[in-house]
Amino acid sequence: MTPEQAVVASAVQAWRTNLDRADKLFAGLTEQELLTEVAPGRNRLVYLWGHLIAVHDAMLPLLRLGPRLHPELDAAFLTGADKSVAELPPAAELKRLWDEVNGKLSVGLTAFTVSDWAEKHSAVSDHDFAANPLRNRMAILLSRTSHVAYHVGQAQLAAKPS
Amino acid sequence: MTPEQAVVASAVQAWRTNLDRADKLFAGLTEQELLTEVAPGRNRLVYLWGHLIAVHDAMLPLLRLGPRLHPELDAAFLTGADKSVAELPPAAELKRLWDEVNGKLSVGLTAFTVSDWAEKHSAVSDHDFAANPLRNRMAILLSRTSHVAYHVGQAQLAAKPS
Repeated sequence: MTPEQAVVASAVQAWRTNLDRADKLFAGLTEQELLTEVAPGRNRLVYLWGHLIAVHDAMLPLLRLGPRLHPELDAAFLTGADKSVAELPPAAELKRLWDEVNGKLSVGLTAFTVSDWAEKHSAVSDHDFAANPLRNRMAILLSRTSHVAYHVGQAQLAAKPS
Repeated sequence: MTPEQAVVASAVQAWRTNLDRADKLFAGLTEQELLTEVAPGRNRLVYLWGHLIAVHDAMLPLLRLGPRLHPELDAAFLTGADKSVAELPPAAELKRLWDEVNGKLSVGLTAFTVSDWAEKHSAVSDHDFAANPLRNRMAILLSRTSHVAYHVGQAQLAAKPS
């Protein structure tokens, strides 16, 4: 393993570590527990889980790994705030979507070379990317890794004492 | 900028972005606001801030950038739980420590080459590193980046509606 391969593999590992934490936290909750707010008047656990699925689904086109699988999640979990949609998918369906989206991402991530990671993501123009080469695929992976950690930190407050 | 330099620079940028978020959140709080719990019965904002300073201070030896600057923070913010130490540093002192520790880290991080990032961190043996080359400096930076995001997510619940 070359130094640059080790650096990239460390980033992919950090992503997976955070996904594992989220999976352990959310996938073990009952339907009733998923309705708990992370703090009084704030988002419910079910919203955070669905939100992570929707954000990860949107990573597929951003990383140029293909079209979104589940844009229908956005109304309940991304563009809309918690409780703006009354009917949410049951826990078993959220788990299936979570595994499907992260599984498809994983296949794509695993195949990227160091040069692939340094290529631009799909939401930046050639012109803007020339001015800022840090608007690359790796920046997407890292910002979404922080995003998982941010919401797992919140979810942990409701899920169990830590 | 080579692809491997862009990948490393993206990781350093992700670290700094999360530090900036934490700085905006914590450094703007009054002494009184710092005593707010992030959720009923959970850590206070002042504890999370001090905790991040202590954890970042401990990154200096982990990244082989020198000895710790402020091990005296551990009793209140790392080894001890919130409220285990009655007398905490005032907000202005926490801000000074936060800037000092992150500033020293920043000088070190900026000088690392791709090969430096792929070297082992100080808490792993040569033998264990040979078996797992992902126990490198980059893994420390990425795990501490997630750690900041995790606690900023919690702090955000108490600091203001988001």
